[in-house]
Amino acid sequence: MFKVKVYVTLRESVLDPQGNAVKNSLHSMEYNEVKDVRIGKYMELTIEDNTREIDVIVKEMCERLLANVVIEDYRYEVEEVVAQ
Amino acid sequence: MFKVKVYVTLRESVLDPQGNAVKNSLHSMEYNEVKDVRIGKYMELTIEDNTREIDVIVKEMCERLLANVVIEDYRYEVEEVVAQ
Repeated sequence: MFKVKVYVTLRESVLDPQGNAVKNSLHSMEYNEVKDVRIGKYMELTIEDNTREIDVIVKEMCERLLANVVIEDYRYEVEEVVAQ
Repeated sequence: MFKVKVYVTLRESVLDPQGNAVKNSLHSMEYNEVKDVRIGKYMELTIEDNTREIDVIVKEMCERLLANVVIEDYRYEVEEVVAQ
């Protein structure tokens, strides 16, 4: 069993209106030291052992569904969980 | 200057319909080895040096705006960036 953490972020060059809205909210709450906010997605997947390699599966899932590779970058961490 | 990464996840006991929808999509794409998907938010904040401690500021921002502590957990990582 694997626990996979996937982080999907907008590419540097892509505007992030949601992040800007959060930044403006923080400024209106007097957190003026906040210079930039970028918002992304964080996913935790639980995946069963399989004949295919976990890296191959995760990369494929990211490129086909979890991330839009035109405007987003992704990275992931795989952690093996020992079943009890 | 600090780069702060904030991860906000739904508490274990809270249902995650968005995660379920993604799981169902993955199953329909034949990734039947995926047993569970939980979706959270990932935020990158750039924060200037300040007289107040960075940990205090980040915790306060998370509890007041970035996370809904009734149904969500948060954790964060602070990384100091040396200005050029």
